[in-house]
Amino acid sequence: MSQRSSLDTDPYASRFSNSWKLASRQDPVVWDMDASGPLSRQQLLDFEARGYSAFPQLVSANRARSLLAEARHLQSSLDPHLDHVISEPTSQEIRSIFRVHEDNAYFAKVCRDESIVGIARQILGSEVYLHQSRINFKPAFQGKEFFWHSDFETWHMEDGMPRMRAVSISISLTENNEFNGPLMLVRGSHKSYVRCVGETPDEHFRSSLKKQEYGVPSREALHLLVEQGEIVAPKGGPGSAVMFDCNTMHASVGNLSPYPRTNLFLVFNSVDNPLEAPFGGTEPRPRFLSYRP
Amino acid sequence: MSQRSSLDTDPYASRFSNSWKLASRQDPVVWDMDASGPLSRQQLLDFEARGYSAFPQLVSANRARSLLAEARHLQSSLDPHLDHVISEPTSQEIRSIFRVHEDNAYFAKVCRDESIVGIARQILGSEVYLHQSRINFKPAFQGKEFFWHSDFETWHMEDGMPRMRAVSISISLTENNEFNGPLMLVRGSHKSYVRCVGETPDEHFRSSLKKQEYGVPSREALHLLVEQGEIVAPKGGPGSAVMFDCNTMHASVGNLSPYPRTNLFLVFNSVDNPLEAPFGGTEPRPRFLSYRP
Repeated sequence: MSQRSSLDTDPYASRFSNSWKLASRQDPVVWDMDASGPLSRQQLLDFEARGYSAFPQLVSANRARSLLAEARHLQSSLDPHLDHVISEPTSQEIRSIFRVHEDNAYFAKVCRDESIVGIARQILGSEVYLHQSRINFKPAFQGKEFFWHSDFETWHMEDGMPRMRAVSISISLTENNEFNGPLMLVRGSHKSYVRCVGETPDEHFRSSLKKQEYGVPSREALHLLVEQGEIVAPKGGPGSAVMFDCNTMHASVGNLSPYPRTNLFLVFNSVDNPLEAPFGGTEPRPRFLSYRP
Repeated sequence: MSQRSSLDTDPYASRFSNSWKLASRQDPVVWDMDASGPLSRQQLLDFEARGYSAFPQLVSANRARSLLAEARHLQSSLDPHLDHVISEPTSQEIRSIFRVHEDNAYFAKVCRDESIVGIARQILGSEVYLHQSRINFKPAFQGKEFFWHSDFETWHMEDGMPRMRAVSISISLTENNEFNGPLMLVRGSHKSYVRCVGETPDEHFRSSLKKQEYGVPSREALHLLVEQGEIVAPKGGPGSAVMFDCNTMHASVGNLSPYPRTNLFLVFNSVDNPLEAPFGGTEPRPRFLSYRP
């Protein structure tokens, strides 16, 4: 399939040239400032400006611990060769399990929890559905780093998500401290869109989930974004969470600490932003990566 | 040469068996609590208990900046293939330059600075000499991680350093913040000695300076040490410094930030602790790694 994304037809065209570009966002961040929901007006304004919100206790510590026990059960029982199960680049240890909202009643329940879904609905100003769900395991001592990227750039080019009208939430099921490779975000980076260089290879997802090498922002772009904003890494105990805009630049360093880091990662997309054919012209990615209701 | 280190002859025997052991330190940390010098008694007591001391401004910010300019000049002018110049595992970018106290007048001067040497002398309770000097460059975005290790375990087994009577100091020439892969230490770990598994391959230093795989503590040992103490990562601007005992467990994660991290790393050994033949029975390492006055 040929790349159908070009500057004159697609505001979020990317991976079509050998030089990167910084474009401005064409969509609101908060789609209805008067929408009711769990967040106060100030929290909505903060999210709009920063591109993320941190919640010290979005889920109770007890519930986080039982979710962790369930996650570990899945980690020890699932076949690491299944498509929707991803292992560390250098070992068989399971790094991510996708599609937990479909396969596991326990996680399905938390994915419908109004205290979580309600925030997504409020920010996106519409009904929402789960574009993707996964558990991320960052094992002690050897959890690998994940370089900077905007999820939207991939969801747009490889899943056909047309507009920036989705949010992700990372719910910590373990301690999330300075030393176990916490999620790092660039405050304010959601307002700029980095058109990346290069062209997407077929079946890019088979490698990108372990180490992303296409759709990766240039160093110069990152310098600019960090200069304009700053790097932040919200910390917290089991049950803390960070919600962030689909275009907020994020990464995480390796985990050399003895503290494994496990989180539940959910992506909510607006029902008014249904996926189309991938703008990069590649075959749509498997359903576990980009659910199409 | 056969391994000359065994439990009955060497209190710090290591790498002779397939199982790790945790032994207690056999030497003082502070060799003369009444020794005069730049540190107060309380600072000596803290160093004795923690195994490190952090100095917010050991060298003036201005001096740090001119040292940084000199370091960058060396980095851009030296041949990366020289033995005493080490590049990143995955690129030609220079990671470390050794022997700067011998090769460069600028660095030679700071290495004789009384405000630095005086602390080493005071802690070790004797005259000292420079066992090793180097500049570490952790480039922005791609500076690699360095796993946990005790320098003394290597200096004992591969350089023949008999006792734990040496200290290292890392002087930051750039910002040293949470995101550019700062030095992490395990508080109190200097009081235990981890006998590592495995046997030292010949010319181990050729790989260990990029990624150490022998003389590396087991995960169980690290768990124990962190449980007994905690991981700390002192931060600071140009001119800040951390001095730590030769046996304090330390590591650093990768640098994904746009902030390069450069430090001057000096190792002072007591003149009463001269190197002998390596206890691991290997050939002595090159002089730039372990200077023998």
